[in-house]
Amino acid sequence: EETHQDTQDVAQRLTFLCEADRLKSVTRASRLIDNSRRENSAEHSWHAMLYAWVLSDHATPAVQIDRVLAMLLLHDIVEIDAGDAPIHGQSDPALMAAKEDAAARRLFGLLSPVQFHEFNTLWREFEAAETADSVFAKAIDRLHPPIANLENGGGSWVDYSVTLEQMDQRVGVPVNKGAPEVWAWLRPQISSVL
Amino acid sequence: EETHQDTQDVAQRLTFLCEADRLKSVTRASRLIDNSRRENSAEHSWHAMLYAWVLSDHATPAVQIDRVLAMLLLHDIVEIDAGDAPIHGQSDPALMAAKEDAAARRLFGLLSPVQFHEFNTLWREFEAAETADSVFAKAIDRLHPPIANLENGGGSWVDYSVTLEQMDQRVGVPVNKGAPEVWAWLRPQISSVL
Ligand SMILES: [Ca+2]
Repeated sequence: EETHQDTQDVAQRLTFLCEADRLKSVTRASRLIDNSRRENSAEHSWHAMLYAWVLSDHATPAVQIDRVLAMLLLHDIVEIDAGDAPIHGQSDPALMAAKEDAAARRLFGLLSPVQFHEFNTLWREFEAAETADSVFAKAIDRLHPPIANLENGGGSWVDYSVTLEQMDQRVGVPVNKGAPEVWAWLRPQISSVL
Repeated sequence: EETHQDTQDVAQRLTFLCEADRLKSVTRASRLIDNSRRENSAEHSWHAMLYAWVLSDHATPAVQIDRVLAMLLLHDIVEIDAGDAPIHGQSDPALMAAKEDAAARRLFGLLSPVQFHEFNTLWREFEAAETADSVFAKAIDRLHPPIANLENGGGSWVDYSVTLEQMDQRVGVPVNKGAPEVWAWLRPQISSVL
């Protein structure tokens, strides 16, 4: 038999899940590989998880892929309130961090206290990028747009007049830290285009 | 030092990951909750994983949520070749199964033999829906569109003139099997609309 408490519990979880639908309407700077349109943050999150799984043999041995997948599943949900800050754009990092912090409190706060704690803790681990799992997750997150740009003829590099020096700094440093073999493959391809 | 073999290995994995980008262009019958457009299969896959995680306390105790997330991450990749078969549409199940089988061979076949085996086996477990993990994953996959329809005023139910009897059969049976507490919450809401 269903109790009133069960029903309330399901309803609360679904309130969060319906609010999360809005991530499909957050548009990123990067384009689909076929250049047909810009990518949204929900489909990017799916693709980043697939990248992490398929490239997991190139992670350091300490990495637990299940935790990385969970991190990437929730990593962009804060953008529903805070918006996407393009990596080659001009946004103020401190202001963006404050907006994302408030977004995490409101959005994850739609969940029960237990799930709020789980989501909030995991998202903050991702943002801090200090553990093996979050370093790999960040490498994957940074890796995904340049590969699309290589395939679709420049994409957001053209829009933002990106230089090789900027790529080494903003993409090379985090990707090399989390997935050095992938960066070794990617860097020569970027330098032949930029 | 990077070897030629490392480089080849990364390149092979990225060939698959770039091909997977096309799932973002496979359009489903269901709409976003804000009714702005139809959903694509990549963002649906992301949302289904979030549903599974958030609702995991309502799964049977045998369910391993990590395996469910991996299943849902890859469950629609075959649609890149086979297309989406709307649950309330007229497609021939045997023909669709044959198309999806060929799609799995071609798409997962872009990976190494080890990863081909992992992906292919997990996708076939999902399709068969006989294990605890795949029964829960199927329940989640079926659950997601009706909740969007309830929020956006009918959506694909209107397009396909769906009846309550069809919903009980096509959605109620699998959702009740994998997540009975969620179906107990959802069924009265569907019956008040259909
Ligand atoms: Ca499907």
